[in-house]
Amino acid sequence: MDEIGVDALLCSVGPDLPYLTGYEAMPLERLTMLVVPRGSEAVLVVPRLEAPRVVERPDVFGVEPWDETDDPIRRVVDHARGARSVAIGDQTWARFVLALQDALPDARFCPASAVTGPLRVVKDADEIEALRAAAHIVDEIAIVMRDRPFAGRTERDVHRELVERMLDGGHERANFAIVASGPNAASPHHDPTDRRIKPGDVVLCDFGGTRNGYCSDITRMFHVGEPPAEVSDAYDALVVAQEAGVVAATVGTPCEAVDAAARSALVDAGLGDAFVHRTGHGIGMEAHEDPYVVTGNATPLAVGHAFSIEPGVYFPDRWGLRLEDIVVALPNGPERLNDAPRDLAIVG
Amino acid sequence: MDEIGVDALLCSVGPDLPYLTGYEAMPLERLTMLVVPRGSEAVLVVPRLEAPRVVERPDVFGVEPWDETDDPIRRVVDHARGARSVAIGDQTWARFVLALQDALPDARFCPASAVTGPLRVVKDADEIEALRAAAHIVDEIAIVMRDRPFAGRTERDVHRELVERMLDGGHERANFAIVASGPNAASPHHDPTDRRIKPGDVVLCDFGGTRNGYCSDITRMFHVGEPPAEVSDAYDALVVAQEAGVVAATVGTPCEAVDAAARSALVDAGLGDAFVHRTGHGIGMEAHEDPYVVTGNATPLAVGHAFSIEPGVYFPDRWGLRLEDIVVALPNGPERLNDAPRDLAIVG
Repeated sequence: MDEIGVDALLCSVGPDLPYLTGYEAMPLERLTMLVVPRGSEAVLVVPRLEAPRVVERPDVFGVEPWDETDDPIRRVVDHARGARSVAIGDQTWARFVLALQDALPDARFCPASAVTGPLRVVKDADEIEALRAAAHIVDEIAIVMRDRPFAGRTERDVHRELVERMLDGGHERANFAIVASGPNAASPHHDPTDRRIKPGDVVLCDFGGTRNGYCSDITRMFHVGEPPAEVSDAYDALVVAQEAGVVAATVGTPCEAVDAAARSALVDAGLGDAFVHRTGHGIGMEAHEDPYVVTGNATPLAVGHAFSIEPGVYFPDRWGLRLEDIVVALPNGPERLNDAPRDLAIVG
Repeated sequence: MDEIGVDALLCSVGPDLPYLTGYEAMPLERLTMLVVPRGSEAVLVVPRLEAPRVVERPDVFGVEPWDETDDPIRRVVDHARGARSVAIGDQTWARFVLALQDALPDARFCPASAVTGPLRVVKDADEIEALRAAAHIVDEIAIVMRDRPFAGRTERDVHRELVERMLDGGHERANFAIVASGPNAASPHHDPTDRRIKPGDVVLCDFGGTRNGYCSDITRMFHVGEPPAEVSDAYDALVVAQEAGVVAATVGTPCEAVDAAARSALVDAGLGDAFVHRTGHGIGMEAHEDPYVVTGNATPLAVGHAFSIEPGVYFPDRWGLRLEDIVVALPNGPERLNDAPRDLAIVG
């Protein structure tokens, strides 16, 4: 905060608050906000009825419950009084941003990630262990799914199985479970439907959850019966591209060069136009966070950066493929946290 | 927009976008935003890889996908060009609010609810039917739970059962399932833990989900074995207070008078200090929305307002009780949408 001249840091919903305090705000209309004035004590302004959820840490922050007829904006402003530069949590609801701007008309607002981003992007050993443990849960699920039936089931049914396996496996929260079959696999962020999976379908499963505050995220591909040459050839190219992305992810390499490594492998295979998204995203307490592995991001990878490498190819109305692992940049080179088999699994 | 002089309405994550278009934005770092310029056509600016999720409705809005290296803020600003008054979705992430304010330095921003609130707060017949159908799902679950075992199970285990029953029952999403046993029931928004429920415990179950875009929300109380007089007496008073709140919720009555009706019943029973929250919240596409049944809200109820009536009493470190139904204000009087039995269920 000193370095960038921020007078007050305000954190609400989103990962900054649990990162700093261990407490996660409920995404509701009653404002929860941690106020960190530069050089003085942090205070968590929290609705009275949620105060019992707070695990108190008096060495880190005070707790100030507000009652139903109080004005929480006023409470926050009282603690941030005099702040001329305010950093506000990136996911804070607009209604609270606007109310705080009205109440602090002389303050300049910037996103809290200006303060917390450089801290959160570098994972320490404990955080890497947490990501590894989360990755292990979804690895085990990806392995089990190789022996599960797919044909005749709906996408929604397989989605449900993935969610339940994540919860059974130790995730406190299942964040998403994309199950995209046949032509639906051409939609990278497909929502599961009642479409019944049938012989000859590709099935893309991309799923992740949160364990002890840290996220998992994996994509594995399944094919009902033997794939045609066109699919297996594209899949082989995808494996090469994903490996190229992982190998390129060494400390000091710009993020965009990692993207380019995976992308050029697909271009070489004649599949460049089918790869319609970036190569990856950072991961930590958020499923998507810095650093983004994308053209235009010249940030060099540093020790402790954790991110996905997930090239994909998509053919509208026909099929699509994606392959994803979480990778950490370490002094001795990139390390995959996922180790489930990466071949195209043939299922029934 | 004409009435309040808004030049452009911008909707992102949250319920306004699906309310207006049927499309729900993913809560991620890639911006999805509907731009509704006053007097001209609406455009949905959406990440390329999520465009296949959009069910197109060319009569309602155009679709403009952006690529990974495009600047979505620029796209939004291009469509909102010249807007001096901008209404932005209440739950839009702060990082996008700030970026849009930078890009539209001469515009005044207000919350989108200034535009959408008056539309969304009044439920038409189809919306009431949707709320009724959602309520029916959780009613059935509340009834089934009366015959289920509680003692020896963890809160987390019962939570999981409620979530699965909501999904099995037809909710596309389980929004929350509070299971608070014994002293934990004194925490109104308790998160389920590994505490094992035991004989003599009260168990508060407050759960809800989304079906066809509309929410359910119910609270029922269970007691493992016969309750002591202190608990059953308080519960009786709570039933009276909840009934008083429901009966008061007639068209034209100010929201705060409904709150006062429930509250004064608990005050009369000597339990006023234990009722630490408002009486209720509106419900629709959001689990909590206008109108809020709270002291200070003088808004009179109108036909089609839908809201919870949920008084509760809480005794820190000991126990707590809450009873909740969803109610709609109709010309002939308030109608409960929930009809599961409202007694204190004795369970094993």
